[in-house]
Amino acid sequence: MSQYNNVSVVKKANVYFEGKVTSRTVLFEDGSKVTLGIMLPGEYEFGTAQKEIMDIQAGELSVLLPGNDKWLEINEPAKFEVPANASFKLKVKTVTDYICSYID
Amino acid sequence: MSQYNNVSVVKKANVYFEGKVTSRTVLFEDGSKVTLGIMLPGEYEFGTAQKEIMDIQAGELSVLLPGNDKWLEINEPAKFEVPANASFKLKVKTVTDYICSYID
Repeated sequence: MSQYNNVSVVKKANVYFEGKVTSRTVLFEDGSKVTLGIMLPGEYEFGTAQKEIMDIQAGELSVLLPGNDKWLEINEPAKFEVPANASFKLKVKTVTDYICSYID
Repeated sequence: MSQYNNVSVVKKANVYFEGKVTSRTVLFEDGSKVTLGIMLPGEYEFGTAQKEIMDIQAGELSVLLPGNDKWLEINEPAKFEVPANASFKLKVKTVTDYICSYID
């Protein structure tokens, strides 16, 4: 499925790291949401409140997941999961297009 | 209205200028569309196919509209219109959050 149907979209962007990471919030009828985001090359650390599933649609990056000492290399579309109340690090090498889902 | 309801959203981003300009496409039931975009600081030139209305939600920038020799300064939320089959130039000073509507 290349698009979400019957959703709401928040007009204002979410802006982080001086705009090097931005996203748009998409709300579903059942109350769940995803963000559709772009990350430009750089190094970032994020904290989670809920569990998150990151679906990398395009881009090359390395990810350090909580409790890991080895970076995960992503060079093609891939998903990874981050537990709630944790932090993870990213080294983004090329413009990265992602979908982040939030799980209760 | 802070969000669009009952719309479709294309999952993949539109990426221009090595990711310094990106947008997401929102499709309405009546067949019309807008893009929700982010521009990072930089200088850009865009061409239009349809007439476009640019609604600047946040950001500081200067705009050179077709047929003008004076730059329009935007320092707060503002709208400007660009005719079809034209080109316009932008000097973006701070991260800019925009909505572009396409008019037949």
